[in-house]
Amino acid sequence: MLVLPVKVLDIRSTEPVAMISHKTASNLKFRHTMIINIKNEFTDKSFTATPVVAEGMIEDGVIGISQYDSEWLNIKDGENVVVSIRRSPVSIDYIKTKMKGNNWSQNEIYAITNDISRRTYTSLEIASFALTSQFQGYSSQETADFAKAMAECGNQFDFQEKAFDKHSIGGIPGNKVSLLIVPIVAAAGLLIPKTSSRAITSPSGTADSMEVLADVTFSPEEMTEIAPKARGMIVWNAPLKLSPMDDIVIGVKKFLDIDPQEQMMASIVSTKIAMGIDNMVIDVPTGAGSKMENQKIALDFAHKFIGLSRRVGIDTEGMLTLGSHPLGRNIGPALEAKEALEILEGKINESVLNKSAELAGTLLEMGGLASPSNGGKVAKEVVKSGKALSKMQEIIEAQGGEKSIKSSDIQIGAYSHTIKSARNGYVYEIKNLVTKKVCAAAGTPSTKRAGLVIHVRMGDFVKKGDSLITIYSDSETKLSSAIQIATNNTPVVVEGMVLRRVKLEG
Amino acid sequence: MLVLPVKVLDIRSTEPVAMISHKTASNLKFRHTMIINIKNEFTDKSFTATPVVAEGMIEDGVIGISQYDSEWLNIKDGENVVVSIRRSPVSIDYIKTKMKGNNWSQNEIYAITNDISRRTYTSLEIASFALTSQFQGYSSQETADFAKAMAECGNQFDFQEKAFDKHSIGGIPGNKVSLLIVPIVAAAGLLIPKTSSRAITSPSGTADSMEVLADVTFSPEEMTEIAPKARGMIVWNAPLKLSPMDDIVIGVKKFLDIDPQEQMMASIVSTKIAMGIDNMVIDVPTGAGSKMENQKIALDFAHKFIGLSRRVGIDTEGMLTLGSHPLGRNIGPALEAKEALEILEGKINESVLNKSAELAGTLLEMGGLASPSNGGKVAKEVVKSGKALSKMQEIIEAQGGEKSIKSSDIQIGAYSHTIKSARNGYVYEIKNLVTKKVCAAAGTPSTKRAGLVIHVRMGDFVKKGDSLITIYSDSETKLSSAIQIATNNTPVVVEGMVLRRVKLEG
Repeated sequence: MLVLPVKVLDIRSTEPVAMISHKTASNLKFRHTMIINIKNEFTDKSFTATPVVAEGMIEDGVIGISQYDSEWLNIKDGENVVVSIRRSPVSIDYIKTKMKGNNWSQNEIYAITNDISRRTYTSLEIASFALTSQFQGYSSQETADFAKAMAECGNQFDFQEKAFDKHSIGGIPGNKVSLLIVPIVAAAGLLIPKTSSRAITSPSGTADSMEVLADVTFSPEEMTEIAPKARGMIVWNAPLKLSPMDDIVIGVKKFLDIDPQEQMMASIVSTKIAMGIDNMVIDVPTGAGSKMENQKIALDFAHKFIGLSRRVGIDTEGMLTLGSHPLGRNIGPALEAKEALEILEGKINESVLNKSAELAGTLLEMGGLASPSNGGKVAKEVVKSGKALSKMQEIIEAQGGEKSIKSSDIQIGAYSHTIKSARNGYVYEIKNLVTKKVCAAAGTPSTKRAGLVIHVRMGDFVKKGDSLITIYSDSETKLSSAIQIATNNTPVVVEGMVLRRVKLEG
Repeated sequence: MLVLPVKVLDIRSTEPVAMISHKTASNLKFRHTMIINIKNEFTDKSFTATPVVAEGMIEDGVIGISQYDSEWLNIKDGENVVVSIRRSPVSIDYIKTKMKGNNWSQNEIYAITNDISRRTYTSLEIASFALTSQFQGYSSQETADFAKAMAECGNQFDFQEKAFDKHSIGGIPGNKVSLLIVPIVAAAGLLIPKTSSRAITSPSGTADSMEVLADVTFSPEEMTEIAPKARGMIVWNAPLKLSPMDDIVIGVKKFLDIDPQEQMMASIVSTKIAMGIDNMVIDVPTGAGSKMENQKIALDFAHKFIGLSRRVGIDTEGMLTLGSHPLGRNIGPALEAKEALEILEGKINESVLNKSAELAGTLLEMGGLASPSNGGKVAKEVVKSGKALSKMQEIIEAQGGEKSIKSSDIQIGAYSHTIKSARNGYVYEIKNLVTKKVCAAAGTPSTKRAGLVIHVRMGDFVKKGDSLITIYSDSETKLSSAIQIATNNTPVVVEGMVLRRVKLEG
């Protein structure tokens, strides 16, 4: 164990780096496979790193760490940290037990969650945890225990009244329904403190779209002030630190391209526990190109999810929704915010409104504000009356945005290109995956004003030369690479009624 | 893609490090999760690294890599490498297929093996491969395909005649039988080009013990000259690069403390294919504290192993051996070399000779030099006649050692301590695991002269004050920490005939 002053390095890396000299390493009794623990001298905040031992880059008796890690420790350049060889946490042994097929006890789950949340695992150990979760699965009890443990290891909130929420498992481009559901439900009188993620690979997360209209980044203290104001909010979940474990595990899961189902359910539900949610509706889009390719899988998931929610005291209903193609016309942060406002302004009345009203309506029924099966109708009336729009303006104001913003005020990418149909025929397919790729090439989600507009709907008859989609971007280069993708593999497939003639061969 | 001069850094780390400045990173279009490929400008030798982007530590337009990695690329300081963002290898997708339960084709197995061997996987991806192997297992065909692919991706040898080999799956301290089997089999007239590993956590690998008597580190070219000389050899396997994939995967497996059985079998067999082995005997120690805790598991393993060997054209017999306690008296590199020489010199005739003769005898039977079930007897005669000793001297000479070395010439650690029995009783247990820990504390395997001698055998009657073990070390500090471990948890358990009296409670 050594007490060493920190040198904050202007350094970025995927793994936490701790840079020490050969001499410091030898004082630490460095061995090749050593893992070290770096701890704030005065608090129990620490993290695990695999050191880089370098000569001529860092002085003896100093440890170099990144800006991010120094902030994690709440340590400034020159202040001391305690550096020691990390002993393998006991909870690592529990992962081995699970590999052998044993179930975890509640205490074991808490220990694993706590150790990961506090950054005592290396990324290889996190991979081991994630893959073991993937292969062995969790029992219902384990899943519920994880949800509770993950919530306990993060910030928790209590709004002192019934809180409602809607969650979508995602995967469908253009799914801007939260921007409608929140104002509808809040306008009807229920509290809906919605936390949302940003997009990683999809064109826009709810937080990305909302950010076009108002701020979404709030500290836990600020959030607790905002939520009761308009009784609805749409804020970014990350700064609230609802589930530190999930934030840590997600990088490894993304990298390995795995998403253990029970772990995913536990982490969704953990954030709802943390936010003090009592009633929830979950949107499970299903269909080709969505996360749940068929209804059987989607139904099974919904049942499991509802069961899990019950176990932790959240009353949940599920809704299987059409997910084989993008929702609505606009895709991309600004374009989706624009479409949502247009609907609230009463300008359009299509599938997005229907889906939003059904989901919002379910919450209204649960909250006793609509009779059974009547929620969707009540929700639509809230939109038609203009109450949902006023509520949205209140929410925007509460989150520091321009209250009077109109859909027409929203700026879209300066460069655009419209792709037209090469033939007469029917719109046979609008592909989720290709749509996402085209948007990514155009600059979403980091470029808010990028995205695309779909001019046609499934089954429409189009003539040669009719507009199919328009791509928007802030950069000519990005636009042309998006066009390239859309040309090679069209997101909108137009076919004649006869798809193929099959003749006897030979 | 950038062509950059290399700066060879005096740097050590568990993961490959590539250090670049922020400006270089931005020229590479760095993103947070970027993985890069670093390639020799003129050959196809390359490796994958996650870059560390640092300011003030490395100049713009230069890439810093470790000595090890520069040697891997065969690149000197200042020479150019081609740096590009690594595209995910196609074989990564095959791992996902396997996660879903599909079997691998021969081509897929070759692609995975080749990609890992050429260092295109990150350690997280290797973890994903290893854990998927662990959870999903391999079919017999997959295991055989891996064995062949791993052999093809490394150096391969052909001695133009029948080659024999013995392999032990290890785990038993003091298992110096190869130092006897090789000279016995070679003295009898068969070719036995034995390659052995060094110890990682155990007190001594065969290569560590042999190194006390002669060199064991030879290039592939040197090895092909040595093998025919005495028709027997005991060399370190690593420099022969028989299985580059295994060398890469083993670190991750050790770290995660997993050892997928079929993967382990495939990697053993791959080295035998690479060495052109035709006939083999496999030693499977079984019992408490060994790798195979009971005979059923050991038998199952032996059957699988024999089946796998057959599939790749190696005629193999298995031998389940007593593995619940250390083999022989001496443990540690020098002590084991000493005991092996003592046996060859005819000074002792105990369990080590019996086990060695049985294993060697099996090979003699396979080679037609002994009638069925008579091999052990023939092997013992080869020892008794002094032929095995002369052969060992030939082998030692061929490997650059002192031909005339005697067991009494071998130096043992200068510091020693003998632990005595605290009571009268019978030797009830000699613990593999504690023995290993005591040896490790004393300095094995890196300190050749460290280790311990067991003065008693299972079932012996000992009196209070009789010597149980003597620990040897080159360092007083290490000796005392070894004594501490042996005192807290004795490796030799002495009990009365009555272990415990059980009375009615209450």
